[in-house]
Amino acid sequence: MEKKSISPDGLEFALPSNRESRAEEENIKKIVKDQNEQGKKIVVVQGLGFVGAVNAAVISNCEVDSEHPYFVLGVDLPTENSFWKIGKINKGESPFNVEDPRVQEMIEKGKSDDRLKATWVKSAYSYADIVVVDVNLDVGKRGKGEINDFTVNIESFKKAMKDVGKHIDPDALVLIETTVPPGTTEKIVEPIIEQQFEKRGINTEENPPLVAHSYERVMPGKEYVDSIVNMWRTYSGVNEKSCNLAKDFLKHITNTEDYPLWNLRKPVGSELAKVLENSYRAMNIAFIYEWTLMAEDLGINLFEVVDSIRVRKGTHNNMMYPGFGVGGYCLPKDPLLAVWSSKELFGREDDMLFSKHAVKVNDLMPLHTYELLSKGLSGELKNKKIGILGASYRKDVDDTRNSPTITLFDEIKRNGGKPFVHDPYADEIEGREDIEVYDDLHEVLLEADGVVMVQPHKEYLDLSVEDISSKMKDGGCVVDAFDILDDEEIKTLKEKDLKVLGVGKGHIKYMA
Amino acid sequence: MEKKSISPDGLEFALPSNRESRAEEENIKKIVKDQNEQGKKIVVVQGLGFVGAVNAAVISNCEVDSEHPYFVLGVDLPTENSFWKIGKINKGESPFNVEDPRVQEMIEKGKSDDRLKATWVKSAYSYADIVVVDVNLDVGKRGKGEINDFTVNIESFKKAMKDVGKHIDPDALVLIETTVPPGTTEKIVEPIIEQQFEKRGINTEENPPLVAHSYERVMPGKEYVDSIVNMWRTYSGVNEKSCNLAKDFLKHITNTEDYPLWNLRKPVGSELAKVLENSYRAMNIAFIYEWTLMAEDLGINLFEVVDSIRVRKGTHNNMMYPGFGVGGYCLPKDPLLAVWSSKELFGREDDMLFSKHAVKVNDLMPLHTYELLSKGLSGELKNKKIGILGASYRKDVDDTRNSPTITLFDEIKRNGGKPFVHDPYADEIEGREDIEVYDDLHEVLLEADGVVMVQPHKEYLDLSVEDISSKMKDGGCVVDAFDILDDEEIKTLKEKDLKVLGVGKGHIKYMA
Repeated sequence: MEKKSISPDGLEFALPSNRESRAEEENIKKIVKDQNEQGKKIVVVQGLGFVGAVNAAVISNCEVDSEHPYFVLGVDLPTENSFWKIGKINKGESPFNVEDPRVQEMIEKGKSDDRLKATWVKSAYSYADIVVVDVNLDVGKRGKGEINDFTVNIESFKKAMKDVGKHIDPDALVLIETTVPPGTTEKIVEPIIEQQFEKRGINTEENPPLVAHSYERVMPGKEYVDSIVNMWRTYSGVNEKSCNLAKDFLKHITNTEDYPLWNLRKPVGSELAKVLENSYRAMNIAFIYEWTLMAEDLGINLFEVVDSIRVRKGTHNNMMYPGFGVGGYCLPKDPLLAVWSSKELFGREDDMLFSKHAVKVNDLMPLHTYELLSKGLSGELKNKKIGILGASYRKDVDDTRNSPTITLFDEIKRNGGKPFVHDPYADEIEGREDIEVYDDLHEVLLEADGVVMVQPHKEYLDLSVEDISSKMKDGGCVVDAFDILDDEEIKTLKEKDLKVLGVGKGHIKYMA
Repeated sequence: MEKKSISPDGLEFALPSNRESRAEEENIKKIVKDQNEQGKKIVVVQGLGFVGAVNAAVISNCEVDSEHPYFVLGVDLPTENSFWKIGKINKGESPFNVEDPRVQEMIEKGKSDDRLKATWVKSAYSYADIVVVDVNLDVGKRGKGEINDFTVNIESFKKAMKDVGKHIDPDALVLIETTVPPGTTEKIVEPIIEQQFEKRGINTEENPPLVAHSYERVMPGKEYVDSIVNMWRTYSGVNEKSCNLAKDFLKHITNTEDYPLWNLRKPVGSELAKVLENSYRAMNIAFIYEWTLMAEDLGINLFEVVDSIRVRKGTHNNMMYPGFGVGGYCLPKDPLLAVWSSKELFGREDDMLFSKHAVKVNDLMPLHTYELLSKGLSGELKNKKIGILGASYRKDVDDTRNSPTITLFDEIKRNGGKPFVHDPYADEIEGREDIEVYDDLHEVLLEADGVVMVQPHKEYLDLSVEDISSKMKDGGCVVDAFDILDDEEIKTLKEKDLKVLGVGKGHIKYMA
């Protein structure tokens, strides 16, 4: 049977045969020759995931003095998991359904104007002036919150680097944008490429690898493109030449007039900056969780308290609100990359207590919302239908990577309840095809014995207590994790109508 | 022998006799009568420490429609420890030597214009329209970092509240400004005053105590007065009347046009806000410490890294820099007030891991600077003279309360070294009369085998590596905890001249 790779929207792409791959190699060769003759530089983007695909779109549309200096070859693997991304881009379509319409526009334009092509052949690297590394480097935990039992998928990352080292021109810049354990560029990437150069008979004294690190700050949502273009960039190279090449490239890609570049002395600094930045955010979220529990027990509305503190701009304006949990690709793993680097690359004792523990607290946070639900239903979860409002990990987007909804869903199920999920954006949860995601809110409310509001999607913010209570069965329970429902309206409820509990809202706890 | 109370600047005040106290009572009675006839309200400020004294100054100078509505009676105890504050204020002098000249001006003016008087007699409370509670509520740890073995001095606070309840008019507002364990106003203060009212035959149904909480955000330094006047205030009352009285008062005292008041539902919310606010700060400091250690081991300049991250306004602009340690009155204890409240007032399990651990990390942080010093001196501390540059807990002020310098001083001594301290502002360290604080920097440098720069006082920021190395003995060592010295200049050093190590500066570690 022919192997296929299927995109989330159902398009099928047959995996390429050896013959097709050879033809593709010839094809790429011709394209590159043509582009080089037009004076274009070749940028290979390695990895066409959430970052790489958008990066490829942005780079292919980059303009300098009314010229497009770059032709982009987006490279991913010819596997069932990945090949559809290549297929989609080559049809001029964004592989991901993102909220920023510019992503689709840019891919379409890059494709139609012949500045963008996706491919799977490794020979592509040999034509690169610049390789932008956007492959994933995943962390696998044995289970949610298992911060002492995790693996860093460094082997597949090493393999990707070996592919690059085997093919690239010695003068090409390798720009690592992947979030990596600090030390990876100098202790892993540089030696691998050096080794490949030596195998290829390249004198690495004369041609030391040109490797640099610069991390992106991509954020899914309406400002996807801006989160690449209109955003500060920190960079650092293993030597002066790589540093300068990285600088020149980043100057073209990002708006350095409003967002000046930051150069750090060594790539390890830039790598550390990225994981520190995200650990800080993870920490701030985890920190407020212990105050959320306290506020609930003390009968306090912590949302109001945080508002009253956030007026102190400069020192307290980024204090987090209570919430439901943490998902996405970065925060659940980045602190662990530092822990791993610390031990595996530098032989340090592990003393990242705060950063590490933050991952645990954030991973397990949805269990608290479960507890409120359980209290609201007097511990009777058995066969109760529970509507979870929100599948994505962030409001107003369809991104469901590591969504905390999964943790709540599983816990409800484990206790005999019947969870079902609604989301206005996402129609499935990545990695959990068993969870059906509904899009008819009305129907979800009519069915539910309990409702848990886990994302402040704008579609939910308009919901009144009346909207919900008029649909739900009598005696139902609503848990509001984002201060969505109005306190004054809650006060007017009778217990038989609806019970409302709120995360971080001790003042409405157990309120009928 | 006559007992005396001696001010830090050496003024002696004989403690009052019973006869003097009776005369003072008569005196106060007359003054109040006179002030009442002039239409003034009487504000009693209870406690004339770092907050109360400045508060008394500010309130006595408060103007509403070109009138001064308040006459202030500042009350403290007639003890050796405290009586000098009363004496100083009544001479029109600030009890503390603070950097903001307005404190002295306001006390002088309040005194000369007959709007301020300090006293020790408890009958003062009976004349109050408003009692502003600024007494301390101390936390005692068995030792630095002992977060599981501490006491909260709630008994002396209760006693102060009993004094108030015994004397005040039932219509007087009691405004708690002391940082207290959340729940104190409603669970401790209100019942104590109620009990005293009942003993006095006051019908507490008709006259429930009027208690409110509003915390100050006083910060020592040049903006001392502004940190009271031009600062947001959060408040909350146990009932509507106390809430409104607090609002009216705070509107007069603070600039509510630019800093609108925040009203929270219950005092426990306002109390929690204060300890949360300071715990957040303590947490952010402790968090960066684990990255400081990592950066040093990885050869990174963490100051540069933090700079590169702080450009992300709104989310990361308050990330802390590496540093030496934490002192002052609030951060070393406020998270523990939440821990105490949690257990003692609400019977909760203690789950404040982050907030509690932050106190420990911050308390012990100076020991890391000690370790760098020890490395710089190759472990040979015995009889080495170590100059510590900085006695206060904060730059450019003389405030030495809980200064982290003490921890470093003791550790050097414990290891056989001979520490001595320099500071351009402070001339002693509170509670540690055994530590001499020198003011001649030149002399300190000439004497020292090692120098540790622990505060970025502006007098130190101008020091060049040359300034230091030219004075110190050959082969000496400098540890710089605040990125004060210039990296480029450090590079020019020869090991025999001077060895420089920096907290959070792995790139200069062990550098000659």
